[in-house]
Parts: sequence; C-alpha cells; structure tokens
Amino acid sequence: PGQSDRRLEELSVDFPVSVVLPAGGTGERTGLTTPKQFCSLSGRPLISYTIQAFERVSWIQSVVVVVAKESMDLMADFIQRFQHRKVRVVPGGTTRHRSIWNGILALGEVEGFLPNSVRPKVVIIHDAVRPFVEEDFLIKIARAAKEHGAAGAIRPLVSTVIATTSEGFLDHSLERAKYRASEMPQGFTYDIICQAYQRSSEYDFDFGTECLHLALQYCGTSAKLIEGPPSLWKVTYKRDLAAAESIVKDALSKSTCVVTGGSAAAESFAGDLQKTTELNMEVHVVPDLNRDNSSKVLKEFNFILVSVNSFDLSALKSTLKDLEASNQAVLHPLVVIWVYLTTSDEPSCISRTTAEVKAFTDVASEAKLRNTLIYGLQLPRTQDSECWRRSVLKFAEITSALVRERSFALVGQLLQV
Amino acid sequence: PGQSDRRLEELSVDFPVSVVLPAGGTGERTGLTTPKQFCSLSGRPLISYTIQAFERVSWIQSVVVVVAKESMDLMADFIQRFQHRKVRVVPGGTTRHRSIWNGILALGEVEGFLPNSVRPKVVIIHDAVRPFVEEDFLIKIARAAKEHGAAGAIRPLVSTVIATTSEGFLDHSLERAKYRASEMPQGFTYDIICQAYQRSSEYDFDFGTECLHLALQYCGTSAKLIEGPPSLWKVTYKRDLAAAESIVKDALSKSTCVVTGGSAAAESFAGDLQKTTELNMEVHVVPDLNRDNSSKVLKEFNFILVSVNSFDLSALKSTLKDLEASNQAVLHPLVVIWVYLTTSDEPSCISRTTAEVKAFTDVASEAKLRNTLIYGLQLPRTQDSECWRRSVLKFAEITSALVRERSFALVGQLLQV
Ligand SMILES: [Mg+2]
Ligand SMILES: [Mg+2]
Repeated sequence: PGQSDRRLEELSVDFPVSVVLPAGGTGERTGLTTPKQFCSLSGRPLISYTIQAFERVSWIQSVVVVVAKESMDLMADFIQRFQHRKVRVVPGGTTRHRSIWNGILALGEVEGFLPNSVRPKVVIIHDAVRPFVEEDFLIKIARAAKEHGAAGAIRPLVSTVIATTSEGFLDHSLERAKYRASEMPQGFTYDIICQAYQRSSEYDFDFGTECLHLALQYCGTSAKLIEGPPSLWKVTYKRDLAAAESIVKDALSKSTCVVTGGSAAAESFAGDLQKTTELNMEVHVVPDLNRDNSSKVLKEFNFILVSVNSFDLSALKSTLKDLEASNQAVLHPLVVIWVYLTTSDEPSCISRTTAEVKAFTDVASEAKLRNTLIYGLQLPRTQDSECWRRSVLKFAEITSALVRERSFALVGQLLQV
Repeated sequence: PGQSDRRLEELSVDFPVSVVLPAGGTGERTGLTTPKQFCSLSGRPLISYTIQAFERVSWIQSVVVVVAKESMDLMADFIQRFQHRKVRVVPGGTTRHRSIWNGILALGEVEGFLPNSVRPKVVIIHDAVRPFVEEDFLIKIARAAKEHGAAGAIRPLVSTVIATTSEGFLDHSLERAKYRASEMPQGFTYDIICQAYQRSSEYDFDFGTECLHLALQYCGTSAKLIEGPPSLWKVTYKRDLAAAESIVKDALSKSTCVVTGGSAAAESFAGDLQKTTELNMEVHVVPDLNRDNSSKVLKEFNFILVSVNSFDLSALKSTLKDLEASNQAVLHPLVVIWVYLTTSDEPSCISRTTAEVKAFTDVASEAKLRNTLIYGLQLPRTQDSECWRRSVLKFAEITSALVRERSFALVGQLLQV
C-alpha cells in the first residue's frame, strides 16, 4: 500500500471498542469535599468532559462509568443534564480493581445495553479525572491493544526517583532514562483483560495498582508502551482544577462571530476588529444567524451582536432564539456581547434610562438560566481616527476579558468603552 | 527541656543560611516563548514570588539568583521594580550544576556582597519555579542539613514507575512504597556542597542531575529525606502557570476592608455584608485609613469604599493617597471597589452624566498605572427588606468576582447591582 493508504490505515479503528471509566474515588487529595471527578469546571462536572472526550470519537461504541453506589443518582442526573448518549452507569466495588472488573462484566451483558452495541474486541480503561485525552492517542492505544493484547500510556519521569533507607536517608537514585511513569489510558483485548481478572487473587483485587501488571502476570502479555502527550495528566489537587479550567477556557476563547445585522457601520466596525491584534481571537463576520450562516452557530461559543444607534433588544432576542434552537449551550456557557454602537456625538449615549437598562438586564438574567452569558458594551463611533483606534483597542481588551473569564456574576452589566 | 522549649528550638534557625536559586532554564516544556521563571502571574514574574518566599524569612540572609547571561539585565530590572533587598544576581554556566556551583562560589565572596552577610553555614538550593515553599519546611531542611550535612525534599510517587524493554514493552513495575520522588528545596552545609563540587568530574557537571547524589558519591554524606507538602510542585507546563495564578489569587481574596467614611448608612450596609455568606471573605470595617486604622492598609489587598448619596470622588482620591503611601501595590495589584450608595428612590441614580463618569474613569486609569484596580458599583438602598437582601447578595457576588479576577480590562467600569 502507498504511503497515504498506510496513513489512512493507521488512522482507522475498524473493530468494536468500549471504554471503562472508574470514577469511584473520593478525592481526598484535592482538599475539597466533593470527589474531584464531580467538581465543577465552568458549571459542568469534570467527568462530563471526560465522557465527552470519548463520545465524540465515532468508533467508540459505549462508555461504562463505574461510580460509588451513593453517587449513582448524581451520575444519572449528569448524564441527563449534559445529554450523554453512549453511557451506562454501574455501581463500583470496594477497590479500584473491583470497580474496573464490574465495568468489564457490564460490557459482557450485551442485552439491555445500548442499541447496536456488541461485545467489544478492545476495552479502553481510563481515569475520569484525565479529561483531555484525544482521538489520535486513543487510536494508537486501541490498535496496539488489538495487536499485542495490551497497551498503555507512559510519560517521562518528572522527578528523579530515589530509594530511601528505613531510617529516611538517601539509599540510591534511579537512572532516570531507564524508567517511565505509567499513565492512562490503557487498552486490552476483551479476552486478555477478562482472563487476567478471572485469574487474579483477592490480594490483587484489594492491593494491586496496575492492570498492565495483571495482564503480564496472569496472561504473559507484555503491554506495548506508548508515550502520551502532557495533556494526559491526572487532575489530583485543587490547583489542577484551576489548570483544567484554564485549558477549557482557552479552547472556548479561540474565535468569535460578529453579527452585524447588515448595517454598514457595524460591518466597518467588525472589519476594524479583525485588524486588531489585541483580541487574540479569530473574528468571523455574518449579517445574521439564519439559513446559510446557521452552521456558524454550531461551531461558535462567542458572539458579538452589534446594534447601531438604537437601544432596541429585538435583534438580541431573536439571536438568543437561534442559539437556543442550536442546543449549543448544553456543554459550555455561551458568551454574547451586545454592542450598542452610537454614531452621533450626543452625550446621551452614556446615560440610558432606568427602564432601558432594566429591560436589558431582564433579557440577560433570563438567558443566564439557559447557560448564555450576555454582557452589554456601549461604544461611541468617534470621528477622530486616533480616538476611534483607541476605542477599538479598548473594546478588544474588554471583550477578550469577558470571553476568557465567562463570569456569571457580571452578566447583564452595561459596560463602557 | 520542656515540651514548649523543644518546640521553640525546632522552630528556630540560629546559624547563617543563604539560598542559591538556579534560574537559567529555557522553559521549553511550557510551550511558551518566555522561560517559565519569567512568565507573569498577575503582572509579576514567577521568580519574584519565589524570591519573596525567601525574603520574608528573617533568618535567611541572602539569595543568589543564577540566570543566563542574556537575562542579567531583565533580572536586575525585576529586582529594582519589585524592591527585592536580599538578592544578588550572578551569571549561569552551561548546565544546571555549573550554574549552582557559580552561585555557591558567589556566596564565598563575602566582600562586596550584601551588608552584614557572612559565609553561610548552610546553603539551601531551590528551583525558581517552585514559588510556594513555606518557612516551616525551610526550617526542617536547614536544620537537617546542619545536622546531617545534606537534606532534601521528597514526595510520594504519583504514578507507578515502570521499566521498559528496549523494544518499548513493559518489563516490570517498581513497588511504589519503596521509592520517592526527589524534589526541591535541598540543603547542604557550605563545606559539604563545596567539597562535592570540587571533587566532581566534567561528566558530573555536564550530565549529573542530583546534588544529593554528588554529596553521597564524593563526601559519603547520605542526605536526610523529608516529605514536603504538595505545594512544592514545580511549575512546568503552561497549565501550571494557571494553577499558580489561581493559588496567588486565592491568597489575595481572603479578606476585604470596608471604609465607611463614618456614615451610618454605610456602616449598616457593611454590617449586612458581614452577614452574607456569598462573599467568601472576611470583612473588616473601618471609618477611614488614617492613624489607628493604617495598620489595616498593610495587611489588605482589597478595599470597599462607600460613598453615600454623593458622586464625590474626593474620599476615593484621599484613600488612594493612603494606599500609595503604604507601598502595598508593589507586589500585588490592589482592588478598590468604589460603592455609590443611594438612599433616595429617585431613578436618576442609574444614569450619571458623561462628565461624572469620565471623572471616575480618569481616576481609575491613573491608579491603574500604580497597580491599583478601581471598579465602581452603584447600589440603591431600597426600603423593601427582601429587595435589599437580594441587592446585598448580588453586590457580594459581583465583589467576589472582581476581587478574585483582578481584571485590568474592566478597571474604571461603573457597574450596577
Ligand atoms: Mg491529550
Ligand atoms: Mg510549601
């Protein structure tokens, strides 16, 4: 086969794959009372991001989430609220290995499970608290597991590993180059992982840490080790939640869609915005979100809606309807910046009446209930070009901050450029 | 000695200690172009936080920062801007060990260094990218180093460590309980670390990773290993910068000082704020920042300044003068929330004149240049008690967000409750 054929072959997974996601941990190390897999990132639990990472992969047929009995209802509620479709929830055991084994047994009960799902050829085991795993890496793990029986992610060691004496002194340090950290995901053929667990002792179930080790010990299967990206890291401490949130917010802040309503003044402003480097986002410009532009709605998380010389909220309301119809806000809060652009020089542009401000605030409060965050921004179109350039810069600076932060507390505020 | 004497003894370090901070790294792993020790957290480079962690410890006499030759000017600029007093900057070598050795040699040149500084008994070596090291742990390291010749921080392993075959398959996994990750800080008596480097080979200087290993190999000194807290972690990836920023922002958001100007309405509002759970901060109340209350200025990073029924900026301006005199804003941006509290029911409270808004914005823009972030918040004192309760909640929600985010982009905005 030619080079491009081989590349295609490497990219495809043409056998059934299911996922087991043990999520029974109690999260002691985060210093939080909520187990870390259930901690909220921008209004959604961490585990929902991890589930989403698998659901968007077309060749993965199902995800079994294993949770503590007392979390079954909470998990079922998450599945419904965030509209997960490939998931089944099963109760966990007293240890990690018992939980994983419960998940694998559930995969064997083909009946009563998801429609069109069959017993998997390969099972991928992952941590609920590693939400940023990507399809290209899952392909490598799934294919290596099918070929070798078992496969696992590794990373270089970040610290020197040392052996200590029983009195707490340095005995010796290991040569870093010879060792690796074992991470997740790992993959196994269904037969190998079943056999390994069937042959495991009670001691293994209670104290063992590595599935790879069980496959080696009980099936003689030496796992293929594949170096994964740094994004595979495990959310362990409270600070890791902040790091994860920052990654999610980065991903949501890559572009914005300016809706001009067809106005020339708004289009000119959008053009100036596209030239600004201060915004740090791609800027797409459309007249509205109907018909041909509706595909924009499905890719965007940020919208700038320009209203020229009129504090009229009808265009804002109709845009909100379009966004609601798209179902975009289920997984991430949307940001809508409503720009009130005035082209006359009368000073009243800054002071709005109480009734006007209240009408805007009411629309914003209502949209917030549906995970859509509206902020207002008053922008006078000055004639002086240097003054206008500064206004566009300031607009870009404020917009970047609003889009990046996605603050619920500041929803409905009418800001000034 | 009694138990309290022993406790006191454990807490004290009565011998000279200096620090070497190698900061020559290039930060390839962060995915950023700036080396990570120079990356900005809330407007200040990471390394300045690390220096601050040592400067605030009374028994540490000096910190030698070792940087790449091309960063000497940048580092000198940081020292001046952030008013570091115990620091000397020296150029690094081509490897980490050569840089550390340069730093130790600089400590030996007592002449021309800091006043009152002597040759140290113990040298602490730390990473510039571990900013959250605390005094209690430094005491343990310094005392153990003096007693045993060498001491180092360790942490439990976060992942299973595995050995791989040359073909990339699992060979065996290490028993986790027997091994530890070696971290920083480490401490050595001056004599031991000098002897170890004097006996080191060129190969050690070029490829060695662990000072502890050199002390063992060349001086027969087996380091005392001490388990450190998770906060010792090393800022390595871009996501770690977000985690570090979140820790800094948490520390800056623990309390706020309400300045009432002595008004009864403002005092009543401050009392309501103290009862709100939504604020997540301690609330201290003072009439002004003069005389007896000036000590508050030196501990607070957040201020709420209440102006009753008057859009008069003079109290704001005088508070800014007090803050500037305190020099508080050198290390962290201060937040000042200027509350315009209206007790009449006339609707004009929402619409301010252009001139008023501009005067406020100008004061805020000027203060921003001195690292003080002013936001305005209009708050009508409604008669209806349920309505007022909701207003206080909303105020608390917005204030928490402003204090937590410390946004430069939103400075000078006049928000509505
Ligand atoms: Mg990944
Ligand atoms: Mg610490």
